[in-house]
Amino acid sequence: MLPLVFIFLHVFSEDGYRLWLRYAPVENAVLLQKYQNQVKNIVLKADTPSLKAAKTELETALLKMLGIRPVFTETVEGRNNLVIELPDDFDVIKNNTGAQELQVIGNEGFILRQIKNENFIIVANSHVGLLYGVFRFLQILQQEQPLPELNVVDAPKTQVRILNHWDNLDRTVERGYAGFSLWDWFRLPDVIHPRYIDYARANASVGINGTAITNVNANAQILTPVYLEKVKALADAFRPYGLKVYLTARFSAPMELDNLPTADPHDKQVQDWWNRKVEEIYSYIPDFGGFLVKADSEGQPGPHNYNRTQAEGANMLADAVAPFGGIVMWRAFVYDQHMPEDRTKQAYNEFKPLDGKFRDNVIVQVKNGPLDFQPREPFHPLFGGMEKTNLMMEFQITQEYLGFSTHLVFLAPLYEECLQFDTHAKGKGSTVAKTIDGSLYGQKLTGMAGVSNIGTDRNWTGHPFGQANWYAFGRLAWNPYLGSREIANEWIKMTFTKNHDFVRPVKKMMLDSRETCVNYMTPLGLHHIMAAGHHHGPGPWVEGRRPDWTAIYYHRASADSIGFNRSSSGSNAIGQYHQPVAELFDNSKSCPEEFLLWFHRVPWDYRVKSGNTLWDEMAYRYNQGVNDVRTMQQTWNSLKDFVDNERFRYVESLLGIQEKEAVWWRNSCLLYFQTFSNMPIPDAIEQPDKTLEYYMGIRELYMPGHH
Amino acid sequence: MLPLVFIFLHVFSEDGYRLWLRYAPVENAVLLQKYQNQVKNIVLKADTPSLKAAKTELETALLKMLGIRPVFTETVEGRNNLVIELPDDFDVIKNNTGAQELQVIGNEGFILRQIKNENFIIVANSHVGLLYGVFRFLQILQQEQPLPELNVVDAPKTQVRILNHWDNLDRTVERGYAGFSLWDWFRLPDVIHPRYIDYARANASVGINGTAITNVNANAQILTPVYLEKVKALADAFRPYGLKVYLTARFSAPMELDNLPTADPHDKQVQDWWNRKVEEIYSYIPDFGGFLVKADSEGQPGPHNYNRTQAEGANMLADAVAPFGGIVMWRAFVYDQHMPEDRTKQAYNEFKPLDGKFRDNVIVQVKNGPLDFQPREPFHPLFGGMEKTNLMMEFQITQEYLGFSTHLVFLAPLYEECLQFDTHAKGKGSTVAKTIDGSLYGQKLTGMAGVSNIGTDRNWTGHPFGQANWYAFGRLAWNPYLGSREIANEWIKMTFTKNHDFVRPVKKMMLDSRETCVNYMTPLGLHHIMAAGHHHGPGPWVEGRRPDWTAIYYHRASADSIGFNRSSSGSNAIGQYHQPVAELFDNSKSCPEEFLLWFHRVPWDYRVKSGNTLWDEMAYRYNQGVNDVRTMQQTWNSLKDFVDNERFRYVESLLGIQEKEAVWWRNSCLLYFQTFSNMPIPDAIEQPDKTLEYYMGIRELYMPGHH
Repeated sequence: MLPLVFIFLHVFSEDGYRLWLRYAPVENAVLLQKYQNQVKNIVLKADTPSLKAAKTELETALLKMLGIRPVFTETVEGRNNLVIELPDDFDVIKNNTGAQELQVIGNEGFILRQIKNENFIIVANSHVGLLYGVFRFLQILQQEQPLPELNVVDAPKTQVRILNHWDNLDRTVERGYAGFSLWDWFRLPDVIHPRYIDYARANASVGINGTAITNVNANAQILTPVYLEKVKALADAFRPYGLKVYLTARFSAPMELDNLPTADPHDKQVQDWWNRKVEEIYSYIPDFGGFLVKADSEGQPGPHNYNRTQAEGANMLADAVAPFGGIVMWRAFVYDQHMPEDRTKQAYNEFKPLDGKFRDNVIVQVKNGPLDFQPREPFHPLFGGMEKTNLMMEFQITQEYLGFSTHLVFLAPLYEECLQFDTHAKGKGSTVAKTIDGSLYGQKLTGMAGVSNIGTDRNWTGHPFGQANWYAFGRLAWNPYLGSREIANEWIKMTFTKNHDFVRPVKKMMLDSRETCVNYMTPLGLHHIMAAGHHHGPGPWVEGRRPDWTAIYYHRASADSIGFNRSSSGSNAIGQYHQPVAELFDNSKSCPEEFLLWFHRVPWDYRVKSGNTLWDEMAYRYNQGVNDVRTMQQTWNSLKDFVDNERFRYVESLLGIQEKEAVWWRNSCLLYFQTFSNMPIPDAIEQPDKTLEYYMGIRELYMPGHH
Repeated sequence: MLPLVFIFLHVFSEDGYRLWLRYAPVENAVLLQKYQNQVKNIVLKADTPSLKAAKTELETALLKMLGIRPVFTETVEGRNNLVIELPDDFDVIKNNTGAQELQVIGNEGFILRQIKNENFIIVANSHVGLLYGVFRFLQILQQEQPLPELNVVDAPKTQVRILNHWDNLDRTVERGYAGFSLWDWFRLPDVIHPRYIDYARANASVGINGTAITNVNANAQILTPVYLEKVKALADAFRPYGLKVYLTARFSAPMELDNLPTADPHDKQVQDWWNRKVEEIYSYIPDFGGFLVKADSEGQPGPHNYNRTQAEGANMLADAVAPFGGIVMWRAFVYDQHMPEDRTKQAYNEFKPLDGKFRDNVIVQVKNGPLDFQPREPFHPLFGGMEKTNLMMEFQITQEYLGFSTHLVFLAPLYEECLQFDTHAKGKGSTVAKTIDGSLYGQKLTGMAGVSNIGTDRNWTGHPFGQANWYAFGRLAWNPYLGSREIANEWIKMTFTKNHDFVRPVKKMMLDSRETCVNYMTPLGLHHIMAAGHHHGPGPWVEGRRPDWTAIYYHRASADSIGFNRSSSGSNAIGQYHQPVAELFDNSKSCPEEFLLWFHRVPWDYRVKSGNTLWDEMAYRYNQGVNDVRTMQQTWNSLKDFVDNERFRYVESLLGIQEKEAVWWRNSCLLYFQTFSNMPIPDAIEQPDKTLEYYMGIRELYMPGHH
């Protein structure tokens, strides 16, 4: 049987659709035989949708990986059974798991363990937990790990692990660079594309358990019956995979849909409207997850319109969904162009005083940094700043400010850097991760959101390596303490090959790629100097009517200096951090150099740690970014023999774009900042071959993600 | 070897991506062996891109169909060779083809023939001709036809066989219902998606040799260097497949791109601008096909703005492209809301006086009917109306007015009905087909355009049966005299299965489907009563500021009568036809009943041929349409065993939508027209279960194809 499978894999090209669920044939012959023995008999009663899904996944995966069709039974007999059951169903399980570990795994965790008689058990307290366990088991096989050594007791550390799709009802995707929205609203609810199921499978395979399917810049129409019927169809398709649906709630919906005179959260009519609307939603979707809300920001309506607080707005919605077990994810991304205050301080100023004022089923969703998904930001001071409020992390998976889907930038290091930052909120060791998993303050509701990079492109994420960011997000939402290296390792093996000669260089390329991007875009703490509107390509010269959307607001370059003084002598943004973090950031000498121009205004001839002037260092770093992209190209080109032709060529083409754009970034930023520094670009680096006027004249039209 | 291939085909689901190029294994064992013998040795020198493409196609197809890898050689030895060469290359070919037949096949045709020694030859005068021959040969294998009987001498009857993509630069598609535009402008020119090649393959396989890749509602940006570089990349990818690229030219481009004060075709500056622009385009794309232009219609700029004729506008562009061998396709779809004249008469009135005034490299592109791609229209009177002008047909493949991509409507019967209409322009037998292939008036430049139904949906056309319309268009552009039945037969066998028990009922379903759609939407000559704007669903009640975009302008229902009087006592549109067609249409008794309300205003109690009153007949036909959709559902459901699960279920879901919408059409139209007729809906038919108010209250938002 096996040869068929192998031949199949070589005959047909890989288009990236299968993600990290490729289930490539096991190559190690010894392991292969052991695996085949281990899964010959599978004890699994597939009597619920989740267990049916688990069974189908096993059937598909084991045929492809091991070339066998296992026998599914309902009884344990003899040796070499794979037993997948709830704890009470079999003695073999009861005798091999303890009450305490069953408590540890909670409702979504699982135990994987080889026991005596060479039986292997997958145990969980719920059917979705069993499904998660099956996916983990298959991942172990995909990575060709020996089974006897396994003893996994794992459970997610956060509760709400959710993708945020900024998808509009016309199928455009705000900040989406992988085609258009997966949701085919026109054909819903009648047509359930197989892709919806594959989407749910991929999410379940990394433990993502929620999806907010509509844009935070919300459209009230999604709350009307004609759309709720469509949402229900998606929810029904996702349910077996433990994936709950959430919707974005437009705060002014009562006015727009039913002509109420107000959306004031204190207004009884408004409250009644939301109560009825929520009841209606749950009549379609009994396990509806709840609402995600962007209010009072960038033109979205919100409680400010009625002089109410963010807490009053959130609590009204929370009260409506509470009877049904729903939650409200309320975004902290609130800022106002009319506020004279440093934009990076505004969210903290707004939310800090509300600490303790939110309902138990509200969770405040905070972006990783205080600005807006830059290639590098310090952590958001609300992490560690809200003791009595449920807080969840919002990472951006889609690369709005990191080269869209044409740049290879592995984001796990960015996520990890943020999660491992020590807020010192309760003394040393108070990492950001601990502020969002409940371990620091004991919050009951925890979570992590990722702004999706998924679209209709055949490979889901536009860039084949964009899949790694979806994967990494899922893994970190499950366990915020995982390392980037481990995540990269898993992903590469499952997505490409287990061959060490491929894994090692690709892992290095991925792990370095974020710093490379920082270097060619925004080294030394520079931020928000992308082109206006679509945010693609350099725009350090961007001015405009709304200062907080310009580049010059952020870099403040002048003939003598550059950088935003957020120290105690400036906007005092550092004052929003606990000590000793505040002090560390406050002093330009102690401030980590990667945040230098974020927190400080520094003369061009300032000497950085390398001994270079700031100007020279900036030039070297920009150039280093370009060189590092070229190194990525060399690495990739040397690996042609390990990759199918289609994916090899696609990545090769994209790296070509990335190299051109890294040069574009370096040249235009150096030429532009040189008009202030008046210092020469060091001879040692490649000189710009075009003029500043040329670069400033580039206008990119019809950009994806910006409609 | 064979079993592998067979197993593969059953393990993996069919998502429709492979179109009619599935190359399913040959099932007839006797034929299989004969085929295997015949193609064991292939004599083909793959030294040009087109021949490389032919070789790759043969390799892929023969492996999948026959399970063999043929040997490619450059010499003919012994028996059982498949010889694919230009005429002069081998004696075996020279001795088996005549000078006359080589002349008949021209530059794109081919000869397929089994000769002595059981050799088989594919001969053409060009490499693209050989590629076309290879595709035809593979289609013969796909349909499992015996080779010895074959003796094909075939050549296209029209020169320009072109798809018109109404694709915008932001990847939305006007009137597109299969996702978004295939052209990934953002990643072009760097990334060449494999799909571009598959698109070119599919077109070449049916002989489509041109593609106008941008919307006729044109954007001048496509003519700028940044886009021309991208267009060049597409042209390079398509070239091996004989597929030329054309662009839409926005008439006001000189003003928009370079601030010229005018776009007057008589202005020297304007002419120079276009000459330079064309030279620039050809510097990127040496075989650029030319321009497609929509002018002076629906807001598009054109020569009218400067009091110039359509000919003067077209000729300016024609003069610019002539030195490079380019052409201009100038659309006749010109009408003006401020004109009091019957809209269906305006194009004829505008163009007829210009007959003979267009340059030789201009071809006037005329829609099949005088209105706008309705489910049924009489042929456009310009066919047979322009003796001294190159005319090409414009069919709509995308189903703007025929239920979008959720209704199964096979369009070949619509195309065939139009092409076979006898214009009597030069006496009996002067079919529309003869007016566009040069056989009636001897035009040198001929062609057929199809407005594409292709998008990013995995199955290309949204509806799996939409693929049949792409296929049918290509076949009819090649040979406008083909029959719908033959086309359906070919397509079904290659797309699904050759099993007669499947082919027979599906063919019947397809051939009946257009009449079914006419019945549930616009029976008896009704037209343009779709909802406003997006044209989805019924809107017989549509009124509005622009009369020629309302429904009431077209059906003119009143308490006593319904229909548009275009007879000699009315708008006299019939006067644009030759005799005896004009007379046939002029008299309500002789007028074919399917055009009754198109040409005549008729009392509600008028007796039609069946003996029913007009009102009853209308009700019966609407109901018949619904019943026929239900029959389609039954047919499809009975064929589950012949189709893979994925395509079966998808079509099943879509037929469900079609049934619901047919009911919607019937009920709302009957309820609405009943407010005029005041006559009861006959008891024998299913009565509406909702009110007219309900139907009139339906608002469909965010519809595809209408951005």
